[in-house]
This record gives sequence, structure tokens and C-alpha cells, in this order.
Amino acid sequence: MSTADEIDLAFPENWHRRHLLDLESLSADEIQILLDTAQKLKELTGGCRNKLSLLAGKTLANLFFENSTRTRNSFSLAAKRLGADTVEFSSGGSSVAKGETFVDTAKTIEAMGVDWVCTRHVTPGTPHLLARELRCCVINAGDGPHEHPTQGLLDMLTIRQHRGRLDGLTVALVGDISHSRTARSNIWGLSKLGAHVIICGPPTLVSPRWQELGFEVAHNLDAILHRCDVLNLLRIQFERQKARPFPSVHEYAALYAMNGARMRRAKDDILIMAPGPINRGVEITPEVADGPHSVILEQVTNGIAVRMAALWLLSGAKDASNSTTPAEPIHYV
Amino acid sequence: MSTADEIDLAFPENWHRRHLLDLESLSADEIQILLDTAQKLKELTGGCRNKLSLLAGKTLANLFFENSTRTRNSFSLAAKRLGADTVEFSSGGSSVAKGETFVDTAKTIEAMGVDWVCTRHVTPGTPHLLARELRCCVINAGDGPHEHPTQGLLDMLTIRQHRGRLDGLTVALVGDISHSRTARSNIWGLSKLGAHVIICGPPTLVSPRWQELGFEVAHNLDAILHRCDVLNLLRIQFERQKARPFPSVHEYAALYAMNGARMRRAKDDILIMAPGPINRGVEITPEVADGPHSVILEQVTNGIAVRMAALWLLSGAKDASNSTTPAEPIHYV
Amino acid sequence: MSTADEIDLAFPENWHRRHLLDLESLSADEIQILLDTAQKLKELTGGCRNKLSLLAGKTLANLFFENSTRTRNSFSLAAKRLGADTVEFSSGGSSVAKGETFVDTAKTIEAMGVDWVCTRHVTPGTPHLLARELRCCVINAGDGPHEHPTQGLLDMLTIRQHRGRLDGLTVALVGDISHSRTARSNIWGLSKLGAHVIICGPPTLVSPRWQELGFEVAHNLDAILHRCDVLNLLRIQFERQKARPFPSVHEYAALYAMNGARMRRAKDDILIMAPGPINRGVEITPEVADGPHSVILEQVTNGIAVRMAALWLLSGAKDASNSTTPAEPIHYV
Repeated sequence: MSTADEIDLAFPENWHRRHLLDLESLSADEIQILLDTAQKLKELTGGCRNKLSLLAGKTLANLFFENSTRTRNSFSLAAKRLGADTVEFSSGGSSVAKGETFVDTAKTIEAMGVDWVCTRHVTPGTPHLLARELRCCVINAGDGPHEHPTQGLLDMLTIRQHRGRLDGLTVALVGDISHSRTARSNIWGLSKLGAHVIICGPPTLVSPRWQELGFEVAHNLDAILHRCDVLNLLRIQFERQKARPFPSVHEYAALYAMNGARMRRAKDDILIMAPGPINRGVEITPEVADGPHSVILEQVTNGIAVRMAALWLLSGAKDASNSTTPAEPIHYV
Repeated sequence: MSTADEIDLAFPENWHRRHLLDLESLSADEIQILLDTAQKLKELTGGCRNKLSLLAGKTLANLFFENSTRTRNSFSLAAKRLGADTVEFSSGGSSVAKGETFVDTAKTIEAMGVDWVCTRHVTPGTPHLLARELRCCVINAGDGPHEHPTQGLLDMLTIRQHRGRLDGLTVALVGDISHSRTARSNIWGLSKLGAHVIICGPPTLVSPRWQELGFEVAHNLDAILHRCDVLNLLRIQFERQKARPFPSVHEYAALYAMNGARMRRAKDDILIMAPGPINRGVEITPEVADGPHSVILEQVTNGIAVRMAALWLLSGAKDASNSTTPAEPIHYV
Repeated sequence: MSTADEIDLAFPENWHRRHLLDLESLSADEIQILLDTAQKLKELTGGCRNKLSLLAGKTLANLFFENSTRTRNSFSLAAKRLGADTVEFSSGGSSVAKGETFVDTAKTIEAMGVDWVCTRHVTPGTPHLLARELRCCVINAGDGPHEHPTQGLLDMLTIRQHRGRLDGLTVALVGDISHSRTARSNIWGLSKLGAHVIICGPPTLVSPRWQELGFEVAHNLDAILHRCDVLNLLRIQFERQKARPFPSVHEYAALYAMNGARMRRAKDDILIMAPGPINRGVEITPEVADGPHSVILEQVTNGIAVRMAALWLLSGAKDASNSTTPAEPIHYV
């Protein structure tokens, strides 16, 4: 294990944020710093496998109010790979059930001496609220359908590793846009770095507001397929939907699933991504998920990389003056 | 990370206990050692934030049979701040569901090589039972309504940090005394160190036995308010009550909640404490909870300090001869 | 904490496996290496209490699809005692509930950079499936009623510590053989190392196939008791049984429970073992469980030892060519 000096890792002097709440409010430069740092930390840890002691003595608190094993553990592993300790809070068995407010819960956890609170909550804007109330760093691990910034970053890092750039690439986000925080973080992050984003899905799952905002919207995957450098196949989030937005899973798959026939009509070097967990046979068939164009497992590894980068950058920010968030309600598409 | 020698932390030679079961059976000197050690460890860890390696290689097992995220994590963080590992056992999914006895469960955990078993159980006296059966250190993290000694210690440490002493102060415990292990640990701890304790609450929630034991009992907060240096506002534990002990939450709040009007009639330097989680609008109003007299979040930080002290003192006790507990049933008010 | 060089622990050059799936497919030499390594690591850690840094920087993932606190924590503690980190996945709250396949879940965890996946699943052969699909090490922590190899190893280590050998000893496995993975791992492991195994239980809980395979089968404990050097008393797994295989618990206990009367007819130096959790009054009475012949708690300590050995050996295997498992269905008695 090594310190930042020993591994020749200079803290980027133009990084000032102490919270990672969304990609919409980050500048292109800030996103680049996150991606560059993630790439460097991935290399320094031998592909996210080895430990450094950059964050020794610090503590990450996971405060998850929605079920998650994967994202929670990815943050925990990222913290441990950099030498930090972790502590887990969840809604089950916690004091929220005893009548405590969300902010009081978070302040109590902060008072135990933690350095980051990483939170997931069904309500959009919850991490922004915490960032105003806490002195420690706040990371959004998903606020309802709003944003999931580290998921957006890991998707972008994966594309950049394969193509060397994001600028000028055409990336389609396919499926359930309305319920997808992954979609929103990708849309803002990719477009800021110069990618052309196509938002593709059934009309019931894509807001017309995206077109008004200047994004390309498509309802027919086959019509755009030949132009795409990357497909990011979003999971149908059955658990978030109150009404079924399409006649059947079979019909959805017929129109939007990535399968062998569609692969033959796609670009030769197309990248197939999915945020996971995947529903084989719904948004993606096994031959595509397990095929040579799929980078789904690389996305998981890059999740460790971007979370290491976020933890290190946020905790090292010296000037918190840029980090204040206006006390306004969250508006999003 | 540093050893005890490097940080100039001498083990107190008159500390001999290997278990922390309650404050009622501790001497005033023993409580002073716990508070002094907690204060010193708080300073050595930069306010309970940094790590020492005092307990490196040792393992804390949390064996909680009642839901708790906060206390459990506070013990875990205290252990990690001193370099120890932690392992979590709970009733859900454990072998107790398969017919194992409580003592067999604890002995099995001990056989895995743990140094402390920290336990919470609905039945008073359970930690005392374990202390007789196990060779490792036992810490009571709450045995039903009986005691919660580290909560008592953290409350006392918080008062001492603000007033420099406990002797001669008037401290009122307000609310649901009958169901409160926090109350019992405070009553014994504070009175041993010379504070004047007022036990205040509705007649349905305060046993007349306290008066027989020589404690001041009050049923009218307004009548004692002007004399109090400290108020410790206990949460109404709705989940423990079989019958509702007062007509309505509204009436309880009217009589016992600490609010702005009562603050204006209190001493200028009154300390407002609450063990948390707080029910805003029930035992405390937001203006008081968030006001300048509130030390609620300092209590949380001091919880780490006293738990570090307990772990270090118990595991360092060389002579276990004083630690035997008589095999008698627990009697308590 | 020390490296392997400093503590003079040579990696056995004839160990090549990267997975521990069952004892049936191990050679006698391989089982000896596991037991010898466990014994050495137990000594080097002062009876499984102190830490070494043999596996620093590595990560164990527990992927448990059946409830388990004890085995899961035993693996975690073994990993931590050798300096590794651990991460916990379970079926509750995980992505399996969102439609993900078991193999996809495991591959996702592997992609986070873990070194071992330790898995428990209700379906026999599940760890064998994972071993074919993953590049990291796979450890079977119980696959339904099939095998639980570390339990078999810890039982064998416990006997060897008391008797200095396994060869020539008579060991009876008593009780619910049909539902017991502990039984199967003991049967294969003990018989490979030269012990005489007696499989003893009600006809409804012992397959006649064992006799066809050449093992001694007994339905009357009293008839074999005088010949036994070791009794391993299996728990009646009420939770696995669809039909009750005997008239009453009382009748089962009358025929198969180890009690004081039977102890007086047993060999003077008989060892009493049980995999735990024990049902006092069913398969064992308190006077036997807590008596001088009982080594039940030593078994728990040895569980840490054999799991440390497994983690170290599997992760150190340099040549993976011997570790491939044929893609065949699991057959077992």
C-alpha cells in the first residue's frame, strides 16, 4: 500500500467539489477529471484488484433506503481498495422506523465521524438536501428516477477505454427512459463531452420533453441501429411501474431487444452495454450479452474505478466554496 | 496508526473489569476511569475521527437480538478506529431460528476467537448471564428496559465536557422512565458521581419505587425546570408499550416537550440532551433540537469515545478476579 | 502481521486446485495438505486468534442464497485473520430478485475484482457450475444436501488433533443422513483417509445405496456404540423435511440421542461431535454436550483453521490446469 506521493498521483488543482450529486450540474472539465482519475486509479490498482492506502483512516457510510447489494458493495469495495473503512446503514432496522427524519439520521451518522455519506433514496433531490445539511461529502448512489452519476461515469469510462474518446460518437440509450436514473446521468454526461445521444424507447417510456430540449428521440430501434457506435440497453424496471407501458414483454422484446439478427445489421465495432442486472430475453438475448461486442462485465469493473475516483477527489477538495448547492427543488425531465 | 506506548496512553492500574454490564455495579472510580479514558481517546483520535492501532488484531462480535443500526454501528466504528475487526451476528437468519439456545450461540461465536461480545437483548440480565458463561469480554448494549451503560457514559461525558464536572449539577431525566434503559444507566451513573438527579414523567411512566430509593421524582416539568442544569429528553418508546400510558401524544407534548416557551424559563446555560432517535414535536420541538443549547450530535460523537474506552479497558484488564458476577437474577426498578 | 516467508510457511508444491467444491473428488493427499495447512495456520495464529498478513489485499465475496450467519462469519473471520477483505452478497435485496441469473450475479461479483467466491445454495452442484464459469476461486459452503467440504475438514481436523490420526478409527455419523451435506463430506473425507465410517440413522433418513457402495449402515445406535471412537451427531433438519420421517421427536431421541446412559456404555475415550447448531434434548442431551468428551466448540475454532487453509491454498495455486471440472451433472447418494 502506498501514499499518493509514492504512486505519483497529483491531486487535480481545478477540482473543488465535495459532493457528487448529479452529472447535469458538472462541467465537461469536471467530468473529464473524474474519468481521468478513474483511469489512473484503475491502472494503479492493477485493474481495480489491488489496494492502495490513499484513503487510510477515512470512513464511508452507505445510507441506502432502497434495496441494493451491487451498487452498495461496489462503493464499499472502492473504499476498501483505497484503504478506507466502511459502515452500512439501511432503512430496515434503522431509526427511521422509530420516527426519525431522514436528515436527522444522516446528521447522526455524520456525527460518528464519517467522511462520506453515500445515499440511495426513492425521492429525487434527497442527496442535494443532504449536501446542504451535512459538512461531510455526499455521494448520490441513485435518487429515484433522477440521476445515478457514478453509473453514468462508469458507462462513459467504458466507452472511452474502447474508443479513446466520447466526442463525435453516437450513443443510443434504449428502453425505459422514464424510470431510469442511468439514462439521465448518461444523457447529461455524454452530451457534455460531445457525444451524440439518441434516446430510444416506446412513446410511453420516453418523455416528449427530451425532443424539446434538443435531443434526438427515436421510437424505432431498427431505424437508428445502423448509426449507433454504442447501445446502452436499459432494464425494464417492472418494480417501478404502476401501469404496464407496453402490451407484453414479448412485444417489447420484438421491438427493442438486442438480438443476433439486429447485431448483423449494426456497425461492425458496435459496443453493447447494459447497466445490469440484465433480463436475458427481454432487453438483450444471451448470444448478444455473452458475445464479443458486450462490455457488460467491464462496466462492473469500471464501477469500482469511478467510485475510487469520486471518493478520492471529493475528500481531497480543499476549497468547498464551489460546492454549495442552491436550496431549490429538483427539476428534471 | 500508533501503539499505546507511542501515544503515551498508560493503562489505568486500578482497572480490573473484563465486562461492562451496567453502571449500577460500577464504583465512582471505575466510572471516572471510563470517562477519563474516553476523553483521552477522543483527543488522540482528533475528535473520534482518526485511527489508532491500539486494538489491532482483535475482533469485536456484535450479537444483537433487537433491531439496532445506530448503536451497533457505533460499536463497530469504535472498534475500527482502534484497529480491531468486527463481525456481525443478528437474530434474523441465525442459528437461534434452528433451535439453538442463546448461550450456545454466544459460546459458538466466542469459539471463533473473538475478544468482545457486545450484546443487545430484550431480556434484562442477558449480558450478565453471558459474562458468567464466556471467557471473552462482554458488553451490554441494552438489555430490555434495564441498562445501556455506554449510553449513560456518553451522556455523562457530554455534560462533563460542557461543565467540567458532574458533581453538584442538577440533571432531569424527562419522559418514559419505565421503558428506558438510558434512564436507568443515567440515574446510577450520575448519582454515583455526585449529580442531583430528578426523575420526571407522567405517573404512569415513573415507578414510585424511585422515590422510596431516595431520588427526587417530579410529574410536572414546569415546576422543576428553573432548577435544571441539564435536561435529558427520553423518547416515548411507542414500540415497547402495550397500553398507551397517556391520553394523547398532543397532551404528552403539552406537558413534557421541551419547546421555545420552556427554554425561556430555563437556566441561561441549560444543556438539552436526547438519546436519539428524536421524535420532533413529541419530546422536543425543532427550535430546541436545532438550537444553541442542544448537544444531541455531540452525544453521538461521544458515543464513539466511550465505546473506544470500554473496548480498550475491558480487553486490557489483566486480573479477571474482580469481574465475576454473582449468579443471581437481575433486580431493578 | 507477517508474510509467508517471515513465518516460514512454504506453499505445498503438489497443491494445484483453485476451487474447493467437495471432498469426494479430492485425493487423500490433497485432504492431508488441507489438514496439515490448517493445523499449521492454527498454530501460527495462536489458536486462530491472531492475524497474519498472508492474504493482504485480496477480497473474499460471500454469496449466500440460504440463510447462514455462522458459516458465513466463519469464512469472513478466516479471511480477516489472514488480512483479506470481505464483501457480503445475499439473496435478500440482491439483483436475483430483479430477474438476474445466478451465473450473471456471480460473474458481476467477480468483475468487481474478488479473489474467492464462497457460495451456499439450495441446489446441489451450484458451486461446480460457478467453477466452470468463473476465473476466480470458488468455495462450496454447502450445496443443498450434497456437500459442505470445509465442515468435513473441520470435523476431521478435530479428530486428528485428539487422536493424532484418522486411519483405523471408527467414526459413526448419526441421524439425518439424507438431508446432511455434513454427512456426505465426512463420509468421503474420512473414508479416503482410512477411517471406518458407520452411517447410522432411521431407515427413512439413510439411503440403502450407502450399503451398496460398501459402507457400513446401522439403524440401531445401541448396537454399534461400543465400537465407536467418534460419534458425529447430526442435527435433525426439520426445515428441510417435507414429510416427518419418524413418529415423534421423543421417539427419535429415545433411539438416537446421545445421553448419559449411552455415554456409560461407550468407549472411555469416545469423542462427541456435532456440527451445530445443536438441539439440546433431541440429538444430544445437555450433560453430553457440556461433558468432558464433547469437542463441539473445538470444532468451531477448527472451522476458522480449515477455512484459512482453503483460502490460502486456493489463491496460491499456480497451475490451474488441474482445476477444471467436467461439465457434467452432479450425482450423489
